[in-house]
Amino acid sequence: MLREVLQELESALPGCVSTNPDDLIRYSRDQGPVLEPALADAVIRARSVEGVQMMMQWATRHRVPVVSRGAGSGVSGGAHATEGCVILSLELMDRIIEVNADDETAVVEPGVINADLNTAVAEHGLMYAPDPASYRWSTIGGNVATNAGGLRCAKYGLTRDSVLALKVVLADGTLISTGHRTFKGVAGYDLTALMTGSEGTLGVVVQVTVRLRYLPQEVHTLAAFFDDFPRAAAGVLAIGRARVQPSILELLDGRTLDALDDVHGSDLRRRGGSLLLIRTDGFGAAAEAETIRAVLVGLGAGVSQEGSEEAERLVELRRHSRGDDVDDLFRVGEDVAVPKSRLVDYVEALEAMAERYAVHLKVVAHAGDGNLHPTFWVARSEGLEAQSRLDEALDASVRLALELGGTITGEHGVGQYKRRWLSWEQEPAVLDLQARIKQIFDPLGILNPGKAIVA
Amino acid sequence: MLREVLQELESALPGCVSTNPDDLIRYSRDQGPVLEPALADAVIRARSVEGVQMMMQWATRHRVPVVSRGAGSGVSGGAHATEGCVILSLELMDRIIEVNADDETAVVEPGVINADLNTAVAEHGLMYAPDPASYRWSTIGGNVATNAGGLRCAKYGLTRDSVLALKVVLADGTLISTGHRTFKGVAGYDLTALMTGSEGTLGVVVQVTVRLRYLPQEVHTLAAFFDDFPRAAAGVLAIGRARVQPSILELLDGRTLDALDDVHGSDLRRRGGSLLLIRTDGFGAAAEAETIRAVLVGLGAGVSQEGSEEAERLVELRRHSRGDDVDDLFRVGEDVAVPKSRLVDYVEALEAMAERYAVHLKVVAHAGDGNLHPTFWVARSEGLEAQSRLDEALDASVRLALELGGTITGEHGVGQYKRRWLSWEQEPAVLDLQARIKQIFDPLGILNPGKAIVA
Repeated sequence: MLREVLQELESALPGCVSTNPDDLIRYSRDQGPVLEPALADAVIRARSVEGVQMMMQWATRHRVPVVSRGAGSGVSGGAHATEGCVILSLELMDRIIEVNADDETAVVEPGVINADLNTAVAEHGLMYAPDPASYRWSTIGGNVATNAGGLRCAKYGLTRDSVLALKVVLADGTLISTGHRTFKGVAGYDLTALMTGSEGTLGVVVQVTVRLRYLPQEVHTLAAFFDDFPRAAAGVLAIGRARVQPSILELLDGRTLDALDDVHGSDLRRRGGSLLLIRTDGFGAAAEAETIRAVLVGLGAGVSQEGSEEAERLVELRRHSRGDDVDDLFRVGEDVAVPKSRLVDYVEALEAMAERYAVHLKVVAHAGDGNLHPTFWVARSEGLEAQSRLDEALDASVRLALELGGTITGEHGVGQYKRRWLSWEQEPAVLDLQARIKQIFDPLGILNPGKAIVA
Repeated sequence: MLREVLQELESALPGCVSTNPDDLIRYSRDQGPVLEPALADAVIRARSVEGVQMMMQWATRHRVPVVSRGAGSGVSGGAHATEGCVILSLELMDRIIEVNADDETAVVEPGVINADLNTAVAEHGLMYAPDPASYRWSTIGGNVATNAGGLRCAKYGLTRDSVLALKVVLADGTLISTGHRTFKGVAGYDLTALMTGSEGTLGVVVQVTVRLRYLPQEVHTLAAFFDDFPRAAAGVLAIGRARVQPSILELLDGRTLDALDDVHGSDLRRRGGSLLLIRTDGFGAAAEAETIRAVLVGLGAGVSQEGSEEAERLVELRRHSRGDDVDDLFRVGEDVAVPKSRLVDYVEALEAMAERYAVHLKVVAHAGDGNLHPTFWVARSEGLEAQSRLDEALDASVRLALELGGTITGEHGVGQYKRRWLSWEQEPAVLDLQARIKQIFDPLGILNPGKAIVA
């Protein structure tokens, strides 16, 4: 980038622009695998809506690609730098503007940490329901960008289901408002939903109005050990057939239990080949937990006692961990989803794939909504050949998820890393419609180019 | 329309095209007020996806406007005929294609009646949650077109929240698939949400995959009489402050009670100036109802006894009725929503407006989400002058809802009737984005022109 172009931005936003090499390196990637390494030309830490508008006017004037970013905790490379880009960090715009306890809504800046919002509203007996595993450090803006999921989705929905209204700065700096402050509202096309999950490719979200839910006053937690994965997956279906909706229903395979034992010195794997973690909440929590317990004991599971501290601890462990450290080209955490009834078939096939391609595999699943996070990995020391086996296994796993009626991404987003798979899921006419929508919002192609869609 | 143009369609879709004057009259309007009377040139009753595709190819070839329609039970004029149009009725495409009890999904054609889907899935312990008051005769396709709400929305969400995937015929006859069969899925832009609520202006929905919910095994119903509306509205907030989520929370004003008494010979009005009808469901239903009862008794309400048949009957009455017969220019049912905390202020102001403009008013509200249905009317015998007072009252009521942070339409859609108010709610840049999205999907402007957005 020309020196004078950057100087123009520095004059407009004094103290907000950094070209410090450490900053450039730190902000030029998120936690997804990097396929196309690139270093941003500058990092802009916005402090106000007006600042974002000025920045976008500048970017439009000089046709500079802009990659927006919250905490950078995404795992699909949606916030990776691209050639010649600047990174727009929203992390300093972190004010909770309003909490309306009677309306059960809150208005926040995009940089507010998910957990901080929950802390602020808890005193009113409220919660912000979407809870990605990163909730202690990811931002609401980032959650909106990826339409983030989490553990409580099957009961409370994705981020989209909690977002009522947005303020968005468009590519040319125009500020628009979408949506409504009320729970219901159907005026015009649903631009709020269109923005949610668009990964910064249609605009920069600078304010979010969310619906809050009631913080459950009662919570019950069960840990159920099964001999093997198929039996645990049968347990998932049995809970469904009992027509009980848990708030959390996590399925861990034997290798995930091994991994937890390694890190925590526990003996989970000795007690079963697969683990179901179940939480019920609300006024019916006790009755729901009792029903679930009876169902699972009937299937031969070893179920924790009422009020088990271990069950609580295991759920919190699962809630708080992203499971792995940063992914890279030798270890990739997948995010497919399949119809619930296909969980068993799918994991069985995954295990066969792992064997065929000689790669390691462990699987956790948000079983209540069929969203799986298989992690495939190879030893770094095995080098390029192993990496290509890993890629083949990933491709095969994604293809099979689609054959079973699933999706390439349940909650992490397409980002940069999963674009190669998007055309496997979506037909040319659908990809084309998206490219043309992108064109409306971003005619110069400066908003997070090369992400989210096949443009 | 030229005779040979119509003949071309009749040859392509033998037995599907009617120009019978009775059909033309019957299909040329829905149940909303008619501002611009028009008669369709033909009614096409589609029987297959391929038929819809052929029809749209024909419409594109000859630039014929197409108004899609389910049961015609909409109340915003979204299915009114426009000049030179044909009506595309989807009512004969009424097959339930699949019910997947373990996946908790169903795949249906657009003409399936909401209640029929519920009957079909009830045997599996499942329900399709969105329940517009018209659910016994409205179609899933029509519900998708308007993003229909209903009584259970505050707990279970709008239609959008239950729609997973769509098959859509575009203006040129291309068939596309949007969304995913899994509960979660974030691949690409959310075209499913964009379609939902677009009132047939972006494409013709020919297949819908919905998420089902668990049919509650326990339901408790309360009827709470209050001295006046402000006290009943305070009851709504108090239930919220107790952090209990009813499945139904309906608020009826005194004039609505008068009207019910007139029709049913009941004595509701004698027992109170305002009525709250509350239903809780699920494993916590009894405890939730008990908590609510205690809260409302504490506020001085007369609350029905446990298991009251009258309470059940009143809720069913409210559930089954659209409240009024067909709206016209002398009686208009509104559909604004305001933040919950503003319900009292809003209805107080409505009453003042009714007095100022000398019009009649009654109000029911889906109080759990702040969605109000005030009905304003004047005597037909009063003629044009009264009609213009009615229009002024409507305008004033809509403007105030917006001032209080509300929306012009909570669940009925903009259709034809509310377009004049859309620009009061949405800024020019937002209206422009919608017009440009419409342009992508419908470059010739043949899909339900003059509806839903300000194009």
